[in-house]
Amino acid sequence: MPDKKMSLLMFSGDYDKAMAGLILANAARDIDVEVTMFFAFWGLFLLRDPDQMTQEDKTVYEKLMGWMTPKGPEELPLSKMNFSGLGKWMLTEMIEDNEAPKLIHFLKGARKKNVKFYGCKLSVEIMGFKEEEFIPELEIVDAQTYLRDALESDVQLFI
Amino acid sequence: MPDKKMSLLMFSGDYDKAMAGLILANAARDIDVEVTMFFAFWGLFLLRDPDQMTQEDKTVYEKLMGWMTPKGPEELPLSKMNFSGLGKWMLTEMIEDNEAPKLIHFLKGARKKNVKFYGCKLSVEIMGFKEEEFIPELEIVDAQTYLRDALESDVQLFI
Amino acid sequence: MPDKKMSLLMFSGDYDKAMAGLILANAARDIDVEVTMFFAFWGLFLLRDPDQMTQEDKTVYEKLMGWMTPKGPEELPLSKMNFSGLGKWMLTEMIEDNEAPKLIHFLKGARKKNVKFYGCKLSVEIMGFKEEEFIPELEIVDAQTYLRDALESDVQLFI
Repeated sequence: MPDKKMSLLMFSGDYDKAMAGLILANAARDIDVEVTMFFAFWGLFLLRDPDQMTQEDKTVYEKLMGWMTPKGPEELPLSKMNFSGLGKWMLTEMIEDNEAPKLIHFLKGARKKNVKFYGCKLSVEIMGFKEEEFIPELEIVDAQTYLRDALESDVQLFI
Repeated sequence: MPDKKMSLLMFSGDYDKAMAGLILANAARDIDVEVTMFFAFWGLFLLRDPDQMTQEDKTVYEKLMGWMTPKGPEELPLSKMNFSGLGKWMLTEMIEDNEAPKLIHFLKGARKKNVKFYGCKLSVEIMGFKEEEFIPELEIVDAQTYLRDALESDVQLFI
Repeated sequence: MPDKKMSLLMFSGDYDKAMAGLILANAARDIDVEVTMFFAFWGLFLLRDPDQMTQEDKTVYEKLMGWMTPKGPEELPLSKMNFSGLGKWMLTEMIEDNEAPKLIHFLKGARKKNVKFYGCKLSVEIMGFKEEEFIPELEIVDAQTYLRDALESDVQLFI
């Protein structure tokens, strides 16, 4: 379906919701649907590169925000039944038992399959993140760039 | 509006969000809009039939998942102000005071009005649910079946 | 883009999600896209006018609901990392450090730019709110009015 387009606004920063978004993105690319993912607020944590974190040029609040929040995909909590990590550990075990791919693999898949990664400029500024702290595919854009893209899409979801 | 179509991705498994989704589904059917609801992850708990639960052929994790999670619509928690059930009890009392229908009635309505019920295959497998544990209308499908349906819809929401 | 239309279903009542919705609404109006926001359940708390609260003609539950819930935009909690208000305080400080507008300013902007404000009739009745407790632009409508509007929109999100 090469003339179809999907736009996902990734807001939540939960492991399970990130999984849902990335499963949809991979499935859409497999049937040749164009996909844009726009990461805002907590959603940005999914795209942090744990090896590229920096504390330079940051205010105290920005440093705190950097420390206290998940560093990359595998650190994201569950939206429900997280139980300080126990629930998430159980879920990832169950995913392995089923030989299903983990979050990191779905992210890798989305990057390989040319999903378009947008990051919300205002969120990045407020949280004090630097562009180099994210995966290199991420392009920082404003809300209107997201909107123009979403208005041309056949499916839009807020996740 | 018989040529219009709505697609709801029911992810959350909260009482109040399930209510929102089912109210929209019923309202849409009443004006002749076609409706598909695709239940994934926590959303599947809404469609469990409390009389059809089984522990057979399940791993320890899958049994735990079956025990620890809500068994059917009336056991779902609120997304906010649940207060270990007190907030939900108050809300359901307020619904009764207003003689408004409860969640179970909206679900019954949706089933009668021929809403299409899809369940996410991957979620069902990972959580170890059996098809017979759900309401009989539920058809287990993969993410691409959801996508193809959503791409043809006029409204898509992630709830 | 004057022939384009966006429809936002504001369900959550979280500070950060209200912010996301209002930023999108403002950005859309700036490029001449028509915007409808339909406030349901917890989403209604955003539009309460703290100076117009009343306890008259309310049941005990309705009074409790009025007391225990956020009174207007600046009282809304964060969806994540709220830490009894500490996380939210930090976030609002970071917003100020960046000289970015606060939630209340985005709401003011949306009101000035003629965003259409709809409130869910059933939610208002169940929670026992009176029409005069909300901002005057809010029009109380049923789910079908929302649906008909959403079906004609180019973007629909459930926030």
